[in-house]
Formats: sequence, C-alpha cells, structure tokens
Amino acid sequence: MQLGMIGLGRMGANMVQRLLAAGHQCVVYDRDPAAVAALVERGASGAADIAELCAQLEAPRHVWIMVPASVVDSVIDVLEPQLAAGDAIIDGGNSNYRDDIAHAARLAPAGIHFIDCGTSGGVWGRERGYCLMVGGATEAVARLEPILADLAPGPGDIPRTAGREGPPRGAELGYLHCGPSGAGHFVKMVHNGIEYALMAAYAEGFNLLRHAGAGRAERATDAETAPLANPEHYQYDIDLAEVAELWRRGSVVSSWLLDLTANALAEDAELGNFSGRVSDSGEGRWTSIAAIETGTPTPLLTTALYERFNSQGEAEFANRILSAMRYQFGGHHEKSA
Amino acid sequence: MQLGMIGLGRMGANMVQRLLAAGHQCVVYDRDPAAVAALVERGASGAADIAELCAQLEAPRHVWIMVPASVVDSVIDVLEPQLAAGDAIIDGGNSNYRDDIAHAARLAPAGIHFIDCGTSGGVWGRERGYCLMVGGATEAVARLEPILADLAPGPGDIPRTAGREGPPRGAELGYLHCGPSGAGHFVKMVHNGIEYALMAAYAEGFNLLRHAGAGRAERATDAETAPLANPEHYQYDIDLAEVAELWRRGSVVSSWLLDLTANALAEDAELGNFSGRVSDSGEGRWTSIAAIETGTPTPLLTTALYERFNSQGEAEFANRILSAMRYQFGGHHEKSA
Amino acid sequence: MQLGMIGLGRMGANMVQRLLAAGHQCVVYDRDPAAVAALVERGASGAADIAELCAQLEAPRHVWIMVPASVVDSVIDVLEPQLAAGDAIIDGGNSNYRDDIAHAARLAPAGIHFIDCGTSGGVWGRERGYCLMVGGATEAVARLEPILADLAPGPGDIPRTAGREGPPRGAELGYLHCGPSGAGHFVKMVHNGIEYALMAAYAEGFNLLRHAGAGRAERATDAETAPLANPEHYQYDIDLAEVAELWRRGSVVSSWLLDLTANALAEDAELGNFSGRVSDSGEGRWTSIAAIETGTPTPLLTTALYERFNSQGEAEFANRILSAMRYQFGGHHEKSA
Amino acid sequence: MQLGMIGLGRMGANMVQRLLAAGHQCVVYDRDPAAVAALVERGASGAADIAELCAQLEAPRHVWIMVPASVVDSVIDVLEPQLAAGDAIIDGGNSNYRDDIAHAARLAPAGIHFIDCGTSGGVWGRERGYCLMVGGATEAVARLEPILADLAPGPGDIPRTAGREGPPRGAELGYLHCGPSGAGHFVKMVHNGIEYALMAAYAEGFNLLRHAGAGRAERATDAETAPLANPEHYQYDIDLAEVAELWRRGSVVSSWLLDLTANALAEDAELGNFSGRVSDSGEGRWTSIAAIETGTPTPLLTTALYERFNSQGEAEFANRILSAMRYQFGGHHEKSA
Repeated sequence: MQLGMIGLGRMGANMVQRLLAAGHQCVVYDRDPAAVAALVERGASGAADIAELCAQLEAPRHVWIMVPASVVDSVIDVLEPQLAAGDAIIDGGNSNYRDDIAHAARLAPAGIHFIDCGTSGGVWGRERGYCLMVGGATEAVARLEPILADLAPGPGDIPRTAGREGPPRGAELGYLHCGPSGAGHFVKMVHNGIEYALMAAYAEGFNLLRHAGAGRAERATDAETAPLANPEHYQYDIDLAEVAELWRRGSVVSSWLLDLTANALAEDAELGNFSGRVSDSGEGRWTSIAAIETGTPTPLLTTALYERFNSQGEAEFANRILSAMRYQFGGHHEKSA
Repeated sequence: MQLGMIGLGRMGANMVQRLLAAGHQCVVYDRDPAAVAALVERGASGAADIAELCAQLEAPRHVWIMVPASVVDSVIDVLEPQLAAGDAIIDGGNSNYRDDIAHAARLAPAGIHFIDCGTSGGVWGRERGYCLMVGGATEAVARLEPILADLAPGPGDIPRTAGREGPPRGAELGYLHCGPSGAGHFVKMVHNGIEYALMAAYAEGFNLLRHAGAGRAERATDAETAPLANPEHYQYDIDLAEVAELWRRGSVVSSWLLDLTANALAEDAELGNFSGRVSDSGEGRWTSIAAIETGTPTPLLTTALYERFNSQGEAEFANRILSAMRYQFGGHHEKSA
Repeated sequence: MQLGMIGLGRMGANMVQRLLAAGHQCVVYDRDPAAVAALVERGASGAADIAELCAQLEAPRHVWIMVPASVVDSVIDVLEPQLAAGDAIIDGGNSNYRDDIAHAARLAPAGIHFIDCGTSGGVWGRERGYCLMVGGATEAVARLEPILADLAPGPGDIPRTAGREGPPRGAELGYLHCGPSGAGHFVKMVHNGIEYALMAAYAEGFNLLRHAGAGRAERATDAETAPLANPEHYQYDIDLAEVAELWRRGSVVSSWLLDLTANALAEDAELGNFSGRVSDSGEGRWTSIAAIETGTPTPLLTTALYERFNSQGEAEFANRILSAMRYQFGGHHEKSA
Repeated sequence: MQLGMIGLGRMGANMVQRLLAAGHQCVVYDRDPAAVAALVERGASGAADIAELCAQLEAPRHVWIMVPASVVDSVIDVLEPQLAAGDAIIDGGNSNYRDDIAHAARLAPAGIHFIDCGTSGGVWGRERGYCLMVGGATEAVARLEPILADLAPGPGDIPRTAGREGPPRGAELGYLHCGPSGAGHFVKMVHNGIEYALMAAYAEGFNLLRHAGAGRAERATDAETAPLANPEHYQYDIDLAEVAELWRRGSVVSSWLLDLTANALAEDAELGNFSGRVSDSGEGRWTSIAAIETGTPTPLLTTALYERFNSQGEAEFANRILSAMRYQFGGHHEKSA
C-alpha cells in the first residue's frame, strides 16, 4: 500500500523503514533534506515539500504526520488544500485527543478523513513493532489496516491470554481501533500516564535500595535532624544492577521497563551520565487533566507527573516558603547540603 | 540435595513439587496432615511433626520454613532444639528483614545458620520458577545453591541484557545472594513495594479509561457538583480487555502484571467477582517505613499502600470530618450516593 | 451605593443583608420569588425578572451575579441586552477564571465592564465579612470599592503583620484587586485548592488519632493480614473533641478550620450525621489543572481532590482490578469487610 | 511550685522565663554555663550539673527535660540515681512516644513517675503560651497542674467553641492529659504531622500563584517540552504578600501558619534568604509510621514529609533512573536547566 510520511525524526524515519521492509511504498518529506535523502537511499520516494508529496500519492491518499504535537496544526494548514474528498490524514504523533476531535470536525466538510493513531514503541519499535491505538471513522481505519498490521508487532511469540482461542484477532495483532476520533490518542494518553507511574515505581524502589546503607552515615544530634532509632537495620550494600537483572526472571515486577532499567544499570550502575532533570511531554499532563475532569482518582499517575516537575526545579519556591515558615515559628535555620 | 520443608500452603507445596521434579529429596511437614499426604503421594517423605522431620534429615540439615510471617518465631522455637551446629534454617516466607537479623543473632551461638530468602512468583512459580532474593552468610548460602538454582527460573529464553556476555552468571540464574542477614527479605520487601505501585498504576489507568464516557452522564447543576466544561471530550466506550491485550504487544507498559490484567479482563471485563476490598500483607508497609527511616522519598509506593487502606474502609472517619467541616463553613449537606 | 444582586441563595442573600446593614441600596432578583420577598422585607427592592432589576438601577449600573458557575453564561445572555456602556457586571460566584476572560472579552465591545470577584467566608460571612479577591479593569474595580469595603471584614482586631505600619491599606481591608480579568477568581481558585488540602490534613490527623487504639483489635494470622509488630504501642483512647479544642490554643496548627472542627466534634464526636461522601465543587479541580498546565508540583492539593473522588466511590473499579490481579498471581481471595 | 529544668535551648529557656514570670521557682541546668547564667540573672537558681540540680529540689521533685530526642536516654541515665520514689521526670521535648512507654516502664520499679509532654508554640510560646499535650499516670499529671496551667495560654480571648458553657475547663485551659504514658507525645506527633501538611498546602498554593504568569515564558517546540495550549490563561502577576495578608481576613484558610507566611512575605516576597532545603525532625516521620502500622491512610501527611526529603536532595538517584529509562526507550537526552 502507498503511504505519505511527513516528519522523519526518530519515530517517523524508523516507521518508514519498517514499512519499506514490509513492501509498502513510502513517499517522505521532512524540513531537513538530509532526513529525506537518508530514506530515499533505503527505497522511499522523496518530496521537496508537502505539495510534492501529495502529488506523488494516488487517490485515495494516505498521509501520515509524525511531528511534535505543537506543529500538527500548521502541517494540516498546508496539507488540507493539497488533498481531496476520500483522502485521509493520520496523526501518529503525541497529539492531545481533543485536537483530534477538532481536526476531524475541521476536515469533515471537505470529505477528508482524519485518523488519530497513538504510537508506542520508542526507538525499539522498528525492530519490535509499534503498538498502535487508533481512533476515527470505521471505514477509514479499515482502509488503513495493511499499514497498521505491518507497523504493529503482530501476535508474536508471547504467551496467549487465557481464554483466547482460534486465529489471532483484534488487539492480538498489535493495533486496535479504539473508537471515534480522539479515541486512539485518548488510549495512548492514558498509556503514557501509566508509563510515568510505572517508571516512578521502579525509580523509587531502586532509590530505596540505594539507601539501604543509610545506617552507616553519621547523623548530627540537633533539632534539625531526624534521629534514626535502629541504624543496624540499614547496613546493606545492594548491587542494583544485579537486582534489576534478577527481577527480570520469574518475579511479579518483570516488565519491559525493568529490562531497560537492567540495561542502563548494567552499563553504569551509578548512572553518571544523568543529572536527574526529567522532562515530561504532554500526555502525562493530559492524563491527569482527564482524570480530574472525569472525577477519577489517579493519585499515583499525577504524583509521578509532579515528581518530574519537582526534578525540573519547580518546587523550589514552595520549599523556600516552608523554610521561611520554619524560621518564623521556630527560629530554625536551613541546614547546608 | 536433601531439604526439609515446613509449611505446605500454596507456596510451600508448589516449591516442593518443583524440587521433587528436579530430583531433590524433600522431607515435608504441615499442621494439616492432608497437605503432607498429598506430597508424599508425589514422592516426598512425610513427617508427623517437626522433630520427626529433623530426624529424617542428614547433617548438615537444611530446613526451609514457608509459613506466615507472624508464626515464624514459634516455628523456630520448636526447630532450634532439633538442630545442631552446621545446620541451616531458611525462612522463605514474607518475613520482615529485621526479624531475620534477630533470628540470625539468636541462632548464631548454637552455630546454626539462618538464611532469609524472599520468594516471588506466586501460584505461577511452580511452572515459571521462583525469583529468589537471598540473605545470610556466604558459605551457608553457597551450600544451598543446588536448591536455589532449581527453584529459580534459570536464564530462560528472555533476551539478554545489553553488555552481558559469556555463560549466564549471578542474577541471570534467577537467584541472588543480596548480602548479609536480612538482605534477601529487604530486597523482596522493596520488590513488593514496587509491585503495589505498578499494580496501582495499571488500576488507575484502566479506571480512567472506564471513565472515558463520563460526558454522557447527566450532571446536577448545584453548588455540590463540579461542572464539566466540555462533555464532548468524554464520549468514549473503551474496550478495556482489548486495550490490555493490545498493550502486551510492543508498548512501553508491557509487563507480567499487564499479562495478568489481560487474563482477568478477558475472563470478565466487569470483574464482577470482586468488590474492591484490597488486602495488604506486610511488605508494602515495611517498604514505606524503611523509606521514611532512611529519608527516601517514595510517594508512589506509599500512596499505593494508602489506597489499599482506603479500599478497606479506613478513610471513612477522615471523610466524615471533611463533610462536617463543609457543613460548618458552608452549610453544605452531603449528597446521597 | 446602589447594587443589583441576581441569585439569592445562601451566599447572595447574606451579602445583600450585610450591604443593607451598611446602608447600601440593593435591588434583588432570584428565580424563587420567596427569596426575593424575604429580602424585600429587610429593605431591599425586589424585581420580578432581570429586566426589571436593571430598570431599577441608575447608570452606571452595577449588577452582581451570585449563581452556580454553570448558569453564569445564561444569566449574562439575559443581562447583556439590558445594560449599556459604562455598566458593570460582577461575577461573585465560583466561576472558572477562564470564563471571566471570555466574559470580559465578550462584553468589551459593548463597553460593559466585567469584574470577577472570588468570595470566601461561607455562611459566616454575613457576620465576619467576606474575603474578596477581585479581577478586572482598574477603573471599574475602583468604582466598586464602596461595596467591596463593606462586604469585606476590614482590618478587624487581628494582630498586624510585622513590618506593616500606618493606616491599614490594601489587603488589610479584606479585599484585593489581584489583576486583570480572571485574576480574582484565579486567586480564589488557589484559595480553595489550599482549603481542600488544609481540610484533608486535619481529617487525616484526627483519623489517625482515632486509630490510636488499633493494637487492641484482634488480628487474623493469615497471608491477607499485615501483622502489627508492637500492639502495645497502639493502646490509646484519644478524646478528639478535647484535642481539637486544645490545639486552638497556642499550637502551630490553630486555624479557623480547626475552630470549625472543634465545633463539629463538640457537638458529636462520632460525627454520626455524616457518612463521608465528600463533594467537590469545581475550584479544587481547576487548581490542579492550573498546576499541571504551569508545571507546578502540587501533590497535596491534588491528592486532597482525589481523596474526595475516592469518597464518592470513583476508585471502585481500580480497586477491583487490584483484587483481580492479586487473585491472578497469588490466588488471593478478597477478605470480607 | 518548684521545677528543675534540664536543657536551656530556645524552648527550655523561654519556658523557664514564662514560669519565673508566673511566680514559680526554677532550678536550671544546661551543658552550656552561659545559658544557665542568663537565667540566673532573671531569677532562676543555677546548677553546675544534674546532681546539683536534683539536690536543690525538695521532694517530691519535678525535673523537666528539654533536650533533643536523641539525648533523652543519656540524661535519664544520669538523672535516675539522683531521684527517689515519688519524684517525677517530665520529657517536654520531641521524643518518640514509644520511648516514653519504655522510659515509664524503666522508672516504675524505682517509683519514679515519668510524664511525657508534647509542647507546641515555638519561639512565640513565651509570650503566647505553650500548647501542652500530656501523657502519664493521672496522679502525677495532677500534681504538675500548677506548672502546666502557667505554661499554657489559658482560655485567652479566642471565641468559645459552640456548645461550651460555664467556666473554662479541660482543653480550654491550653493543656490536656491525653492518656497514659506516651499519649502526650502521640498527640504531639500527630500535631506535627498535620503541621507539615498544612505548611505544604500553603507552600504549594503560593507556588502556584507564583506560576500564574507561566504563559509569558517562551517554550521550546520539541518532544521534550510539554506544550501549553492556552498561554493566555497564564498572564498574571500576583502579589503574594498581599494575597497572604488578604486571606488572613475572613477567608476559610486563615490560620496562624498563614499569619507567619504573611510576616515572611511582607519582609521579603522573594524569600531570598532561603534556598529551599527543608529539614524534618522526627515527629513527621513517626506520624507516617504510626499511620502505616495502624492501617490509616494519610496520603497528604506522608507526601508532605516526602517533599521535604526531596528538598534535601534524596530523590536525585530516582530521577537519574527516570532519565536513564527515557534514554533507553526513546533516545531522550536530558534538557539542561
């Protein structure tokens, strides 16, 4: 099947390569001509701009957008006049599902389909396949299935869920039509919300293991230092890389994120290349907003988000207020680090 | 190798079967003679009491205790006089690592080794193998390796961590000597703390997906009901079982706990057999206490624990105070459910 | 000064009475004629509808709206055609500050001022005065000052903040022009976000005091019940009403919310009139959304909100997932309550 | 009445002055002779060591200890041999209530009473009076009442709780016998737990107000930066000092901690003297541990504690793990600050 791809960053370029390998025809465009050239070398058709990309596609056209959420709007502005009724735009990036609803409504009068596709898999997706969460009109999604099926991991060799029988079907293929416009990105959004909390759960746990020798540190005896009643309970040196490796085998907490943690710790158990400023990229925020608006308690998901804000330095003024209060009521001076 | 096993519940009985299948000789005891008989039928030697169990073992004896944390003490009381210098007791249950430190100290004068072994794997362990986290003196743990190696899953066919080369070693075998007395249960404790938070992350996320149609509900227009500005953003019917199945393939959140969630939802997407009263069993609590005592922030781990307390009804009085305050300052009456 | 008041519920009616007592002239309207009649009896002018209310006011008119946030829009729809350039609408309810920005923009072409006024004080405000957080154009706010000053508590007899000298000024008068449109409700929104967390802090603390005798309860000895290592540490019967009363005097946690808690507990230490279903009313939600959008970590404020959702039963499905997972991996059955 | 005081730091010295002013006779000792001398100048009797202090007291002796929790034990070691049956030791510091239980048990055979007294009031207590939470045997506490009554604020001029009539009694006097040994420090512990959360609630709220202009900042357009959909909603400059002052008057969030915040912000709205490293001093930790052990959900109290740990830098390794995971699955590099 033929597909246009706009945006050849980490994700877009890998997806094109996976599609080319599966025998699809890809017409590609990126602001950066070098990114286009790299894929042309691997068998894609290059386009110098969006108009040229559209011109190379046969109707009904399918144009996949893989760009930062904040520039989707401007890409659609350029794209819309180049398309005709029956064509379809797929937003495979990390857009807010609310924007999908708006985009679908905007393109409907022109008869242009809008499909939202949440894409998980990161830099490993080219090899492992991408987990695809799709929203939009049923017939438009159906037409796209050849592409979806080849981007997805397929049934693979993972053990089958109890009770599932017969040939693999539905979600077992690695992609899912989740509902009308926005449903795909909604599910992807919640996926990322969960991801933040899973990551934080491991991070907190390993950090606690790292503190298992806290009883050996000297402690000041003053009103600013909490005493430790039983220092003999905290005398361990836990090998974090070995623990991560261990838990991959037969434990209840085994997961792909743990596999990655084991990778990282095996490379450098001190993680010295990282300072601990953790970015967040939109979907974690939208997940918590959706939770709040629907009245759903998600304390872990939101706390994981806030801890990232904290890592970015955004709690600093709050902490200064706390120190100021302590000084006001107790004459407490801050301890130096 | 020869092993005595005391406590033939869900875990103990399965472990004995796994060891028998691997060719080890097991002498078993449980308060319930039927549990003993069932294993004798499968090749174990039965004992009518702990003394008889010890009498059947050749020195140096290895006795594995697999009982609730709260009865370990009383089992050791009975066991100690039956053992001699050079023998070893292994506590494979869910004991507090602090108790291990005390038990090891208590048994040391008699020359009896005490090994703590955190065991993960649940009802699946017999087949998948158990992930074993071990603490104690090096030579005692070394002597136990034949047992540990066969209880553990071994390297299996999971992809190897980047950078690991040569024959599988250390944690890749599925068991790990984590440090001196208590280190095994310490690592297992943190494992369970992480487990609680991972579980809660999925539970919150799926619960949010279930609320994706919240915009369709009628809302009262009164001061007690938060308005929903954009009900059109919450009009979805997400198929939770399909989403769980999907995420197992190529997504960032794939994990064994997700596999189990997919199992449960495939069986009954409403989970009608459950009311939502979630137990907690000690290790989650000890994890948070260790975090507090060592000054390690673990907000997700602890929140997951508190949400379980909440599910047990323990927030009720706090909530009544909130309603009482609202009535005091605003004349607000509680809404009925 | 003359003021029109639309909405004579708990808040609106009390504010009118406070203004009448201060010598202002009030023209009042409510859907419920009885509410109008009650205030006419106390000296207000009644109006049968909004048009009549506007007709009774002299230009430049000031019309204060005190209705649920969800009906402000429809009131403005009716009100706008009755007003002229130079008139002002004040939204004194619990509106989202974003709506203020929209309302001000909508009314600007007609030369109608829009002032947002966050109002704190609850049923006690008539007597204590209302704390007023105001947003809007400077000259419009200035014109309203006679009303604001009399609704507000004024400097009162509370101890003056260190460093403040001379005649009371600015916020010391009990009202504050916080900034342009929306600033008043923005500050009120954060005020309520803080309020939720303060309330929850006391509720959690008193709930913990109520659990101080937990060591006396019998505990099951099974894998579903966390053991309590030292029951002798939890043998207290704390008199909550007395503690609340005590903390009002000289403690660091004294506050108006504590005063109210003492009231409630003095009346009935069991709080038997309440079941613990705690409503939330919009501003708590918007506070957390603003925190998320601005990248500000507010874990306590948001957790307090989620605990209210939880009290409304919205965590139930999440808890069922947890129980289902526990059953899947460990064969654990739920305990009955 | 006569009282010995050991420990003349911030708290002890002020309490002695308050007692001297009320006509009590105080015998004082501190490791620092200058601290003793300063109080001798104000009318106290000085002692060169603990033995001398005891020798100056008439039986039955009352010795109040006001030292860091971690040195109480060693003071009692020295004190016990100097005392006789019928004497009483009062621990007025921030001890763990569990230690009180142990101390009382240790001193009981010698007939020495042990009274635990949680003391709130900080540097303001000398003037405002101290809020006293007392545990111990009824007759011993009764004997101490003259001292307790004069340290406490007394009924003062705060409005009386609804329903309380007749002469002030019980907690209205500003001190409370909360129960047997440890009950006083238990209540004080929970008091401090609440205090942490109240402080954090204000700190988070003011920090959010400080972020109210976040829409004016330039934002990068990349996958590492969460987009802000409506920057026009965050264009405010809120005067934090004025808001703190405002909320002191008639708002639901007025409190003594808010008064102190207003003081601090009036002095320097930037709080430039503070860096935001917030100490914690034991009771916050014990509160959360008690919550965990009794199965009481206290998510705000514990989160407030964890945020302090975070401010002390203890989340750093957890954050590095998060960054490492993000790099592993998405090739994301950390952004610089």
